[in-house]
Amino acid sequence: MEYHKSFANLIGSFRKLPGVGQKSAERMAFYILEMEDEDINDFVYSLRNVRKEISKCPVCGMLTGGEICSVCSDKDRDSKTLTVVQTIKDVYTLENSKGFTGKYHVLNGLISLNQGTDLNNPAFSALVNRVKYDGIKEVIIATNPTIEGETTALYIKKLLEPYDVMVTRLAYGLPVGGHIDYADDLTITRAFEGRRKI
Amino acid sequence: MEYHKSFANLIGSFRKLPGVGQKSAERMAFYILEMEDEDINDFVYSLRNVRKEISKCPVCGMLTGGEICSVCSDKDRDSKTLTVVQTIKDVYTLENSKGFTGKYHVLNGLISLNQGTDLNNPAFSALVNRVKYDGIKEVIIATNPTIEGETTALYIKKLLEPYDVMVTRLAYGLPVGGHIDYADDLTITRAFEGRRKI
Repeated sequence: MEYHKSFANLIGSFRKLPGVGQKSAERMAFYILEMEDEDINDFVYSLRNVRKEISKCPVCGMLTGGEICSVCSDKDRDSKTLTVVQTIKDVYTLENSKGFTGKYHVLNGLISLNQGTDLNNPAFSALVNRVKYDGIKEVIIATNPTIEGETTALYIKKLLEPYDVMVTRLAYGLPVGGHIDYADDLTITRAFEGRRKI
Repeated sequence: MEYHKSFANLIGSFRKLPGVGQKSAERMAFYILEMEDEDINDFVYSLRNVRKEISKCPVCGMLTGGEICSVCSDKDRDSKTLTVVQTIKDVYTLENSKGFTGKYHVLNGLISLNQGTDLNNPAFSALVNRVKYDGIKEVIIATNPTIEGETTALYIKKLLEPYDVMVTRLAYGLPVGGHIDYADDLTITRAFEGRRKI
């Protein structure tokens, strides 16, 4: 027996979400049928508006509700030190650890040897420009300690070699093969303390 | 660092879905930021319209795009035999097994001794009425083999006692293609009790 078309479409939309398989998508769709109208309306409103109300900071790539994000526009932060991260989510994780008081640069993608290198990622040239023109003294690379993360770190080091900037990497306080997203605050703080020149 | 309000709201909406915790909800919300416009529009459309386009069959409680559902209105099906299931999803599962050609009755809820009994579930009185007025000869109870499912099965049996109808329960036993090694003790005990001459 086939699901009604609009129900099948809803399941299809849930399946597009990361980590959601057919069974989970079906459970979610059935749940929607029983949900309060208000909750559905909130959900629809959030989906429709989140991308209108939030954009990416033109300087660092973080989420922002206005122009420049709250980190980039914070005069109290050390603007000579940049931490380069893989995803926006990583900025939240690092911020919540309170182990870093400089600024960020979000790559939104890594160099992957399997999936084709993404050397044209505009975040790389933007990073070079920040180093060239913004008086950056240190770039801390906080990509995940995976093969892609390492490759990207080495690529960035090479990119920045012509410039008078120290390039460091977060220490292997992070479990190798793991993800920053799952690290605890102390591990992240130790990783900042133990960063080494590469 | 806090998420922007509309982003936090989106995470909150995802968290309401079954089986979605904070980390998964965050991943989904970040994914929405990168999604194609068309996919977002489809998602929003489905969420807004699924409950307008689909309703519950007034006879059996199944999903239907019109009035009476396709099972209830199918003249070729045995209308003297009803299978009582716990959820709409169960109807799809049983239909896909092609093991049953009668009609269904969806409870949409069980009697739970922990969470307060739901004896007022209108599906119970609707079931009694179908038995009373629709010439039902057999009611097969296919609630899950859990404590709540068993309690509900016994309750239905009691409800239908005054009427001239056979009440049966799906057989317990080893799953076909399964291994005795993986069966739990109660299933094995029930399989012994329900053993049949070959």
